Amino acid sequence: MSKFWSPVVHGLTPYVPGEQPKLPNLVKLNTNENPYGPSPKALAALQAEVGDTLRLYPDPGSDRLREAIAQYHQVAPNQVFVGNGSDEVLAHVFHALLQHDQPVLFPDITYSFYPVYCGLYGIQYRQIPLTDTFEINVDDYLQSNGGIIFPNPNAPTSRILALAEIERLLQGNPNSVVVIDEAYVDFGGESAIQLVNRYPQLLVTHTLSKSRSLAGLRVGFAIGHPDLIEALNRVKDSFNSYPLDRFAQSGAIAAMQDQAWFEETRARVIANREKLVADMEALGFEVLPSAANFIFAKHPNHEGAVLTAALRERSIIVRHFKNPARIAPFMRITVGTEAQCEALVGALREILA
Amino acid sequence: MSKFWSPVVHGLTPYVPGEQPKLPNLVKLNTNENPYGPSPKALAALQAEVGDTLRLYPDPGSDRLREAIAQYHQVAPNQVFVGNGSDEVLAHVFHALLQHDQPVLFPDITYSFYPVYCGLYGIQYRQIPLTDTFEINVDDYLQSNGGIIFPNPNAPTSRILALAEIERLLQGNPNSVVVIDEAYVDFGGESAIQLVNRYPQLLVTHTLSKSRSLAGLRVGFAIGHPDLIEALNRVKDSFNSYPLDRFAQSGAIAAMQDQAWFEETRARVIANREKLVADMEALGFEVLPSAANFIFAKHPNHEGAVLTAALRERSIIVRHFKNPARIAPFMRITVGTEAQCEALVGALREILA
Repeated sequence: MSKFWSPVVHGLTPYVPGEQPKLPNLVKLNTNENPYGPSPKALAALQAEVGDTLRLYPDPGSDRLREAIAQYHQVAPNQVFVGNGSDEVLAHVFHALLQHDQPVLFPDITYSFYPVYCGLYGIQYRQIPLTDTFEINVDDYLQSNGGIIFPNPNAPTSRILALAEIERLLQGNPNSVVVIDEAYVDFGGESAIQLVNRYPQLLVTHTLSKSRSLAGLRVGFAIGHPDLIEALNRVKDSFNSYPLDRFAQSGAIAAMQDQAWFEETRARVIANREKLVADMEALGFEVLPSAANFIFAKHPNHEGAVLTAALRERSIIVRHFKNPARIAPFMRITVGTEAQCEALVGALREILA
Repeated sequence: MSKFWSPVVHGLTPYVPGEQPKLPNLVKLNTNENPYGPSPKALAALQAEVGDTLRLYPDPGSDRLREAIAQYHQVAPNQVFVGNGSDEVLAHVFHALLQHDQPVLFPDITYSFYPVYCGLYGIQYRQIPLTDTFEINVDDYLQSNGGIIFPNPNAPTSRILALAEIERLLQGNPNSVVVIDEAYVDFGGESAIQLVNRYPQLLVTHTLSKSRSLAGLRVGFAIGHPDLIEALNRVKDSFNSYPLDRFAQSGAIAAMQDQAWFEETRARVIANREKLVADMEALGFEVLPSAANFIFAKHPNHEGAVLTAALRERSIIVRHFKNPARIAPFMRITVGTEAQCEALVGALREILA
């Protein structure tokens, strides 16, 4: 507390990211990173950026990157907004598109950054309980609101909402912005990007941190109607003209263009997930159906916090959420390599024995 | 305009950065980049980041970078805040520290992003006219305020305010935050960082885009009392947990540690500036005393806009500001290499002939 702080600062409860331990030899399954590295073509593009041109500012509009994303997703470049990770994109989304008189709606169990953004921008929100099976029920969102946002698949539950249900949500909400945060969609969902040309209130956000394996580079994007994108650009250009450095722009372009690497690595993650789910179930765990690169699992006889601590003693890190109470039994476990998944299952077998 | 926009978006007038033309063979003297490349040690560190670890998130706290900056400037790491370029640092400064009941004060002629930040965060401001010789008069800032900010050296005027005057400003403003934006200080000023341990209201911001020649990497920082830094961290952690990617962190660490390259290249820029000023004066230009890596110059018989356009026809780009009227006669010219400065002077000689 300090008299020098702006009033808003006193009330902030910042987001706490999963830890990034600086220890070697960890089996790190706590922040949903991709176990396979980035596209070799992305690495080559990054390599090519090392040089004297780093003395020059990057392209403030990230034009070539927006074109590459537009081409991949078959939209126009003015339907694409890019940012320094999808967290920055989401921050601008809350500021530019979700600050209205009515409260923003999102699930009670979801990405815990959403209420933090609301605190930062003084936005009212209402948390809508997931069903008993941890699903989003679209009917619950057919009420007056200042915007709707949720991840699909949802985090940390990993459950997907079918595209037909998202369309029903859009039809019931023609007058407020609906943001579908598709950070994990490439691991098992159908993207709502195919709907943006029919629903001007729809904005879809993506990240290159998961399926493109570039968490270390910080690139995310949003796709929607040009009017929504213009609002984001106005806020971005009132905040930081050059949010993506030269590495982020070139690496992301190459990653978006390497379809073969993308398909191969996401297929491997999906295959590892299916094997992991089967192994966990064989140990007695209940695992929610996952469409993501992580699973959400609980054991009927062991607490999530206890298992998480026991895994940590064996140098395996997963994520545990104390709140709300009904997810406290669960662990959120990132799908790792074959070897990492085996190490995890082996450790759990030992712990449960 | 769109019904989906948050109300704040309608009123925004975004900042317009100097253009980043994608044409080859330009003499680009419009955005105050360093004409010499980054430290070879920084390039080696960047090289070493190209690899599989890019699949992992970067350190959210940029701890090693903050330690390197702290060591260089002889402060504690908890006195250092880092951001995605000093523009992002400044955005967080306005949000976290300058949003009070009284208006923020800054010069009428200064970095044109300041009023834009105020628009984004709904902050009232008062512009204090520079003197007739384009100087900051500290007496004008000894009035009730919600914070004070200016660049030192100021931009686009290039003039420096002596450290003793900054100290007088601090003594007269014990109850509001004073931000000294030292983007250009390494080219001829004395840093106010040496005052932060005596004035808890003082925050000093720096960038690695100018004297460290890393505009393409996007790294800036702020140094001040830990209470001020905590406010910035709270806002940062409510906005984006991971603002600096792996390249930005490693490249910046190496650049901060390469004292020899820093000293050599800034000495060359200063020498080029002195030669450029003499050559311009020989052509009849009036040049304000510069402590920066750019000069602010006008010719008694030629308009700034006309000269800027004539230079552009010769593939030389400088920056011209139409507003306010009393700087319209000037051009802001980045100090380039010896060859670039000669090309500029040669072109002006031709134009004036």
